[in-house]
Amino acid sequence: MRGMKAEGGWGVISTEQCDVHYSGNHQRELRLWDEKDIPYLARATGLIHDHEALAAVELVHNGSHVGNLESRAIPIAPSLRPTRGVFPATARAMDKNDIRAARRWYRTAAINAQRAGFDIIYVYAGHDMTLPINFLSRRHNHRTDEYGGSLENRARFLRELVEDAKEAVGDTCAVAIRFGVDGLTGAGGDEDEGRDVIEMLAELPDLWDVNLSNFDYDGSTSRFSDEGYQEQYIKFVKSVTSKPVVGVGRFTSPDTMVSMIKGGTLDLIGAARPSIADPFLPRKIEEGRFDDIRECIGCNICVAGDRAGVPMRCTQNPTMGEEWRRGWHPERIAPKDTDDTVLVIGAGPAGLEAARALGQRGYSVMLADRSRELGGRVNRECRLPGLGTWARVRDWRLTQLRKMPGVQLLPDNDITGEMVLEAESSLIAIATGATWRADGVGRYHSDPITGLGQIPVFTPDDIMDSRLPTGRVVLFDDDHYYMGGVIAERLVEHGCEVTFVTPESTVSAYTQFTAEQKRVQRRVMEMCADVRTATALRRTEPGTAHLSCVYTGRETTAPADAIVVVTGSTPRDELYTDLQDRGESALTAVGIRRVVRLGDCLAPGIIAAAVYSGHLFARTLNTALTDRTPFRRENVELGWDQPLPATGDSPGPGSVFG
Amino acid sequence: MRGMKAEGGWGVISTEQCDVHYSGNHQRELRLWDEKDIPYLARATGLIHDHEALAAVELVHNGSHVGNLESRAIPIAPSLRPTRGVFPATARAMDKNDIRAARRWYRTAAINAQRAGFDIIYVYAGHDMTLPINFLSRRHNHRTDEYGGSLENRARFLRELVEDAKEAVGDTCAVAIRFGVDGLTGAGGDEDEGRDVIEMLAELPDLWDVNLSNFDYDGSTSRFSDEGYQEQYIKFVKSVTSKPVVGVGRFTSPDTMVSMIKGGTLDLIGAARPSIADPFLPRKIEEGRFDDIRECIGCNICVAGDRAGVPMRCTQNPTMGEEWRRGWHPERIAPKDTDDTVLVIGAGPAGLEAARALGQRGYSVMLADRSRELGGRVNRECRLPGLGTWARVRDWRLTQLRKMPGVQLLPDNDITGEMVLEAESSLIAIATGATWRADGVGRYHSDPITGLGQIPVFTPDDIMDSRLPTGRVVLFDDDHYYMGGVIAERLVEHGCEVTFVTPESTVSAYTQFTAEQKRVQRRVMEMCADVRTATALRRTEPGTAHLSCVYTGRETTAPADAIVVVTGSTPRDELYTDLQDRGESALTAVGIRRVVRLGDCLAPGIIAAAVYSGHLFARTLNTALTDRTPFRRENVELGWDQPLPATGDSPGPGSVFG
Repeated sequence: MRGMKAEGGWGVISTEQCDVHYSGNHQRELRLWDEKDIPYLARATGLIHDHEALAAVELVHNGSHVGNLESRAIPIAPSLRPTRGVFPATARAMDKNDIRAARRWYRTAAINAQRAGFDIIYVYAGHDMTLPINFLSRRHNHRTDEYGGSLENRARFLRELVEDAKEAVGDTCAVAIRFGVDGLTGAGGDEDEGRDVIEMLAELPDLWDVNLSNFDYDGSTSRFSDEGYQEQYIKFVKSVTSKPVVGVGRFTSPDTMVSMIKGGTLDLIGAARPSIADPFLPRKIEEGRFDDIRECIGCNICVAGDRAGVPMRCTQNPTMGEEWRRGWHPERIAPKDTDDTVLVIGAGPAGLEAARALGQRGYSVMLADRSRELGGRVNRECRLPGLGTWARVRDWRLTQLRKMPGVQLLPDNDITGEMVLEAESSLIAIATGATWRADGVGRYHSDPITGLGQIPVFTPDDIMDSRLPTGRVVLFDDDHYYMGGVIAERLVEHGCEVTFVTPESTVSAYTQFTAEQKRVQRRVMEMCADVRTATALRRTEPGTAHLSCVYTGRETTAPADAIVVVTGSTPRDELYTDLQDRGESALTAVGIRRVVRLGDCLAPGIIAAAVYSGHLFARTLNTALTDRTPFRRENVELGWDQPLPATGDSPGPGSVFG
Repeated sequence: MRGMKAEGGWGVISTEQCDVHYSGNHQRELRLWDEKDIPYLARATGLIHDHEALAAVELVHNGSHVGNLESRAIPIAPSLRPTRGVFPATARAMDKNDIRAARRWYRTAAINAQRAGFDIIYVYAGHDMTLPINFLSRRHNHRTDEYGGSLENRARFLRELVEDAKEAVGDTCAVAIRFGVDGLTGAGGDEDEGRDVIEMLAELPDLWDVNLSNFDYDGSTSRFSDEGYQEQYIKFVKSVTSKPVVGVGRFTSPDTMVSMIKGGTLDLIGAARPSIADPFLPRKIEEGRFDDIRECIGCNICVAGDRAGVPMRCTQNPTMGEEWRRGWHPERIAPKDTDDTVLVIGAGPAGLEAARALGQRGYSVMLADRSRELGGRVNRECRLPGLGTWARVRDWRLTQLRKMPGVQLLPDNDITGEMVLEAESSLIAIATGATWRADGVGRYHSDPITGLGQIPVFTPDDIMDSRLPTGRVVLFDDDHYYMGGVIAERLVEHGCEVTFVTPESTVSAYTQFTAEQKRVQRRVMEMCADVRTATALRRTEPGTAHLSCVYTGRETTAPADAIVVVTGSTPRDELYTDLQDRGESALTAVGIRRVVRLGDCLAPGIIAAAVYSGHLFARTLNTALTDRTPFRRENVELGWDQPLPATGDSPGPGSVFG
């Protein structure tokens, strides 16, 4: 993945945060605990260097942010404090031996990073989860020694880490600080002491990388922030240091990037999510291929993969995370190796991507859709509150498709089974999407909700088709991603009085993975007349919704002129069934060798899954599950015979106190 | 770990569930997707066979239980259905090709399991997360073909899987079914169709392993269920089959085990948690060493490790999960290799374990406690509602200590710094525990809560010391494990009217990891006058608690004659500080070479962490963090050059429909 970004023209490829020691043990990030971790990091730097980019590593100790569930070490922090989250552990206060030890761990990690081939060594203080920020923060640091009290004292640990790294590797590596400028006050506030820290250490690092400390704001989605949203917080930095400054802000537009440089906000453009959506973004700018940039939509499905501890995926770039596993390249794809011609029915995200990638392979493709406007669900959802940038899923693909002579776009074409038989295509891909259910069946209810026939019932499809209820509305969200929340917003805009009901304990529970949950729930609570979590819609009658607590079964009611159910979806697979009913011989007789379903028509899911489904089909010409695992795996090698590490009697130098 | 259990005398060592295919991709369990997984499973069976036990494997496909976050395959199920949890994915309905394929995957996995050395191959249907149970369940199975409708049809898939496995490996391996008898109706209900399934397939498998289908009930903690609690559900099984029957029920008492066999409920005693707490339980029964059995306390900290995806740990057995990592054995420990004599101050879980393991090593140990009754926090907590079995942490260790001539127990001894200097011990371990804070500082509040001086305030220590409030009580739980919930129970028993307030969105949020959360929240909601989640206590005045919503900041109030704060704890480290203040030379002058803190005195946490802390000290004579990682690690080996698996054009046999 990192080699791919280097090939795509990024000047520096940086890792995510990388633990320096087992006592700051983040479960899901990189680690450089000791020299055993060098080989796999060296593999990455080698690939980065193959493409003449620089490799950077973000060294970190996670302090009281982590419970050390894996290493079982007692967490450490400047002052005693429960660890973050709900794991029942307390970080102990570091004594002077601990501070000296932590400095050694960072220094050793910097040396090992250099041995692994990194060119830029970060001391990472970019988020409020790191030990240097713990020291800087008045909330975390109640020390009375030279590491606590005044800002100079609280900044001492960070200063020492940078000085130590410069002394250890500064002759051949750059030493950078990533710093969340608002980390000392909290989310989205003004810079407060952040500015003072940068002024104090202004000329110390070789590079300043500045961002927002609270990840929910730093990695803000397009639903909550526009491109370049960090500028107001970080624009002062260049005025207080002569060192180069890099920042982020979900940059995808070359014009915005240029304005950041020309306007004096930044010297270098940083990008995580945009480089995931398009690893070749810089190369495309360089070559003037602006139309070809696959812009990040700001949905944070990448973050969701990270938070779930699984390979990263991306709505726009279905090859993300599949570079090594499947040998997929984001820009190149094998030329066609069969004589197939393909009819793709349905131009939503799955159909668009299938047609585009098949077209790229050189296949002759017809892409039909019953609507005049191509885009499927993306057209509809991008008009919902906050989801405007999601149109990029459609726009980038249509732009590509219109350049492909082998692909024929057929809007306004409602393809029937008869038409499929006459299409003279050997592969038929049905990507006709899904329909939101109106009967309440979903995760909580396996059977329809009683009484829905006695009251006006609306689904997200109705709302997106501008069929809206009026008056008092009970919205039952049993989907738990964005849809319930944005539909509530739309209803409130329309003047409805909304009672938001969900069996989960939080509003839009899945958005905890996309780092949006707190902001979504706040917005929904502020907009809606009432929010009832841990509550299910049980039955309805005219004027009333009967609810029950998922824990106790206690029944309550809510006034309801109408019900909106955001529950399960069913594939629109009538065409597939029609073709099945005709029998295989009717199909093979006209030269059809395979009929598949793609995207929501195969299984309703998120847009990223639909795009991936279309891409997978274009690569493999199939959708069936294979008997053998179709990707490379990272098997664990225990190193069964490795000697036990020396432990035992090894106190800090000269101290009786262990 | 498994070799250790075999050495301890268990007749069969079984794995947890083991995926047969990447389309049923549980992130945190074993997998046998293809022959690449054989070597590491063979390592386990080899160690099991070294001790003449049999090795069993629980083959499973997770159906709609999983979102396949890693493999990205569309989940499959008998009928279309959203996957479990909040991940936005839908499982598609399997067609006949899929069913044939699933049978192939199970069959191939059985053959590969045999190649890996397993003696017993399970078709796992022990929990309601498995494809065979999906087929059996009317809630999941709405098929109209021969796999849906009648029970015989719904059981067809399970029957075929067992028949296939018997045909493939039944000549040399036993083929077993694990079956959750209540899986078709839901949690804790009566057996319903479960009995019919067992009657129908009675003589088909070589072994019946029966349990409860809903894990929250199957793996019930001691807070909610007694030893042998599954008997009422599974006792019918032996009456309908002639095959041997095994079952579980957190068995730790030889008498109960014997009564299960003699009473005709079971032929074989199964145990997961008891074998974690004491891998040598069978050997101790065999040798008549009943006193030495280290009984499971039923706290489910083992389950919490599993759910967090980290190495398993155990409150009673600190060596669990450290067998390979650190080379620790649950019964054996290196003899002493220094001339130290040890004074352990504080006989809570950390001090007891440190003294016990040091005594086992042959060290001369004094264990002092200021109380007449040894046990520390365990003594106090085991008197709280539902926590009675937790006394076993104390009881087992006291039984062992009393057999050790080298260990001197000194109850009723409040050790001062002066006494330490006169103790003629070279190692001083201070395990004096922690105190619950009364100022409200914890996870949510970094500074004391305003107004607590104006109203009676109680902590868990007060409640455990029988100082209880009366009237209307606001309990602020910012700890999130068991304490808030059990204190609420105690207060209600005492006649208080309790408003339970927590900044988390659920009651006792951490208990989601111990599989207790739903039952805890139901109990607390049923007992308390009011439960306010996502709410913080902001300030108090006489008669009133001022609260605010953690999302919106909206303020509310609750009537309060008293406040109970269950927030952070502070170590009772006055003795440690006293010795530090005396200076190192005063200590070395009397032969003290090291002073350490253990358990809660080092960092407040759970009892499992305290026991582990004491054990680690006994092994290493130190508590300092080491520079080098002190345990073996499972480094990932990418097999960088492995060829890409063949994918592409491989449809099911003879079908046009992909």
